[in-house]
Amino acid sequence: MPLGTLYLIPVPLADEAAAKSFTPYLVDTINSIKEYIVENEKTARKFLKEAGLKTPQSELLIHDYSKHNRDSGTGEFFKGLQVGKSVGLMSEAGCPGIADPGAEIVEKAHRMGIKVVPLVGPSSILLALMASGFNGQSFTFHGYLPIDKAERSKKIKELENLSEKNDQTQIFIETPFRNNPMLEEILKTAHPKTRLCIAADLTSATEFVQTKTIAEWQKKVPELHKRPAIFLLFHR
Amino acid sequence: MPLGTLYLIPVPLADEAAAKSFTPYLVDTINSIKEYIVENEKTARKFLKEAGLKTPQSELLIHDYSKHNRDSGTGEFFKGLQVGKSVGLMSEAGCPGIADPGAEIVEKAHRMGIKVVPLVGPSSILLALMASGFNGQSFTFHGYLPIDKAERSKKIKELENLSEKNDQTQIFIETPFRNNPMLEEILKTAHPKTRLCIAADLTSATEFVQTKTIAEWQKKVPELHKRPAIFLLFHR
Repeated sequence: MPLGTLYLIPVPLADEAAAKSFTPYLVDTINSIKEYIVENEKTARKFLKEAGLKTPQSELLIHDYSKHNRDSGTGEFFKGLQVGKSVGLMSEAGCPGIADPGAEIVEKAHRMGIKVVPLVGPSSILLALMASGFNGQSFTFHGYLPIDKAERSKKIKELENLSEKNDQTQIFIETPFRNNPMLEEILKTAHPKTRLCIAADLTSATEFVQTKTIAEWQKKVPELHKRPAIFLLFHR
Repeated sequence: MPLGTLYLIPVPLADEAAAKSFTPYLVDTINSIKEYIVENEKTARKFLKEAGLKTPQSELLIHDYSKHNRDSGTGEFFKGLQVGKSVGLMSEAGCPGIADPGAEIVEKAHRMGIKVVPLVGPSSILLALMASGFNGQSFTFHGYLPIDKAERSKKIKELENLSEKNDQTQIFIETPFRNNPMLEEILKTAHPKTRLCIAADLTSATEFVQTKTIAEWQKKVPELHKRPAIFLLFHR
């Protein structure tokens, strides 16, 4: 029996961003499959509805890979794929597997010889990089920086040096409620001529993307508390 | 007078991939603006038509930032933005500014205080990373590796070490007609247990994405000549 296909389905980054997030192919895809592996069942059902799912939700088979289920193994998630059923993989926001869990599911699919098809959709990293004006020929995404103040400050210096040495954009994130202290730390630590791009609330009505030097940012510090944000450093 | 907005408009990666590439918001955006800054006028007009442009093409004002024009400066490209007109920025494939020119236009827009809005669309880097099953919490895109054989082999070893040291996915590209020698070099140089993802012809009917160990790839080498491809290395 031929194996099914694992579709990687990005979801919106913000509320009321459906028109900015879903391609017609994505809408067709979700209407052609009935089985999903998701990070959170409740939000997954909400996204499917928002994208234009016509299948009654009661007909869907949804596997939740939240922490509890992950401990008990993901083997059962692949039973449908093994008998030829196509399955969608979705995370909580953005692209599954990118700054998000989900990669382990994809890894397992490859090991089983299952075809993996990634769909176009929103990624805050890509949107921010595009909009930063920084080098997109060479860049690193670091995820979260250390929480400890001294270590974090050391890391920021390290990223600045990496950027200069490799002519490379350095990208990182922070938990939204810690954005303000993070920004404070960057403004205190980085060189006045280093450029910093702050991208917050991407694809939402309050979207904010600006690139300035550290010296310029110091004059007027934006309020980032609890706003999903992404930071990009570039030092030439 | 308020300044215009610079919209960053991704374009398809392959022929006949419109339904996989364009969101409704992108279609609305191109139908609300009449001025563009593009890498290639001819392909830009083709993309606009493919996306569903209703404005007659003769009414569009298109600035081409091909090599010749770049030398003579980009100042005139911003005249519309300075008098409040919104302008779209498009490259030849994928997202403007990412593994592509365009970043200098965005950089200049930020310096002039022009609002920059990135639109969701296809990026081969992001699609490949998502589909690789590798670490998406930490990754580097290196662009092209050195052409010289000895230097390239050294670089591949370096990426392998970086990946192991930082638990980081290493991503790079090659000119399509050099893909086969590149793959040969990787298979010769990298550790048999290192995992390599090859993503070719993304979003096209012949799309190919597979992750295997170097040892597994050596048993059956795919034909990549002239196919747009992206390589991802991960060594644990």
